[in-house]
Amino acid sequence: MTAERSAFGRLVGYELQVWEDGYAKVGLTVREDHLNRSGLLHGGVLMTLIDATCGYAGTYSADPQKPRRGFTLQLSTQFIATVKRGAVLTAEARQTGGGAKIFYASCEVRDQDGRLVGDGQGSFRHRRSTLR
Amino acid sequence: MTAERSAFGRLVGYELQVWEDGYAKVGLTVREDHLNRSGLLHGGVLMTLIDATCGYAGTYSADPQKPRRGFTLQLSTQFIATVKRGAVLTAEARQTGGGAKIFYASCEVRDQDGRLVGDGQGSFRHRRSTLR
Amino acid sequence: MTAERSAFGRLVGYELQVWEDGYAKVGLTVREDHLNRSGLLHGGVLMTLIDATCGYAGTYSADPQKPRRGFTLQLSTQFIATVKRGAVLTAEARQTGGGAKIFYASCEVRDQDGRLVGDGQGSFRHRRSTLR
Amino acid sequence: MTAERSAFGRLVGYELQVWEDGYAKVGLTVREDHLNRSGLLHGGVLMTLIDATCGYAGTYSADPQKPRRGFTLQLSTQFIATVKRGAVLTAEARQTGGGAKIFYASCEVRDQDGRLVGDGQGSFRHRRSTLR
Repeated sequence: MTAERSAFGRLVGYELQVWEDGYAKVGLTVREDHLNRSGLLHGGVLMTLIDATCGYAGTYSADPQKPRRGFTLQLSTQFIATVKRGAVLTAEARQTGGGAKIFYASCEVRDQDGRLVGDGQGSFRHRRSTLR
Repeated sequence: MTAERSAFGRLVGYELQVWEDGYAKVGLTVREDHLNRSGLLHGGVLMTLIDATCGYAGTYSADPQKPRRGFTLQLSTQFIATVKRGAVLTAEARQTGGGAKIFYASCEVRDQDGRLVGDGQGSFRHRRSTLR
Repeated sequence: MTAERSAFGRLVGYELQVWEDGYAKVGLTVREDHLNRSGLLHGGVLMTLIDATCGYAGTYSADPQKPRRGFTLQLSTQFIATVKRGAVLTAEARQTGGGAKIFYASCEVRDQDGRLVGDGQGSFRHRRSTLR
Repeated sequence: MTAERSAFGRLVGYELQVWEDGYAKVGLTVREDHLNRSGLLHGGVLMTLIDATCGYAGTYSADPQKPRRGFTLQLSTQFIATVKRGAVLTAEARQTGGGAKIFYASCEVRDQDGRLVGDGQGSFRHRRSTLR
């Protein structure tokens, strides 16, 4: 699955752990350079994790030669608990609906203690050339 | 203003350009490591830019010795146009409301041709110790 | 629970079915006057249902003499499937986080066949005079 | 423009005041039956107003014989100030982007004193049979 990680995914350092039809699980360990001005997890990192995990959830392909991709149309996120350096985050997203052109997904992010730290939902457009 | 850039802000590379009471302008040049699996701007980068710019808009302090900070409660973003490597993005956010505890802000992101590529709005909580 | 339905709730006609600490279930049968210009369920009805159900989920009180209330800060909703007149919708919301001042809730709306037709998530502020 | 008001629009009582290509203005006077359990404007009314106004902004047709319509994909709204009975609200929405299939719109709602009471942004799909 390494080949399917984006350049920005490598910069941020999240890891795709499980990828199935309609489901994805992505992990991230919070580093020093993920922090905001208050020394807590930057909102942008959490949103990136939610965006990426939702995107994976809707674009699984059983054939590695035929990867599928999507574009985010809109994403909304909530920041439910603050997160410190060293936290091990797990994002799980499920495709909740959609058809040939658009898909919807929802995502929850929990820390190593199972505490919900954020969630989000988004709508995405399938990239035409990568449709099943 | 450099001192007020977060660790994640340095990793992503955005630059605070204008910071006034209720307003902020942040710039970002799209690099190779900002791209997604399709070779276009990763949604997480745009969301990070919107989150950071909205956050600045509501936390201006005239006294550099008394910086103010906030936490994102919820942020929603729209991705209106795709963006390629090399694009020069400018995010402008304005505080739209709020009081002692919570503030609201809206943000538009445009490219070097003035084309709207994304927008967003969020609610934020003032960090108590940094209130005016 | 009738006394706790708002004036707008009566106009729209939704019914609170289950109300527990951190959870609420609200029903609505789609009538002619819930439709949009295309003769399908108006987005505003779905959003009203999601807003109301989330609001209930975070404001349960075991003592009917001490009702609790909240204000919506921000709500985002997705419209996953179209809905026709006569559909019997059930919205279920759960409080996902929060503390003394703010709470978060998420909601799913399904039709009589269990099909997901919309979902949403929001942040809310407890009305001070009604805090536990 | 009366013919273009939906059944739910009649129930809620909002009025389309200006309708141009990419822009719409809708008015609503807050009535008793628009209130929530706290006696203030129900979030669902504000969301309905924002949804409807954004929807109009993206579906203007110069030919009344060929009305255009859209479906909401996702909408996010913020509640910036509380509103009481008797307030005269004006919602203004602008289409911010989109193409043949999808459009984006943003909306601000102000009261009779020009105070911003809420805003929102959404993505919408053009109804196929009503495309230009």
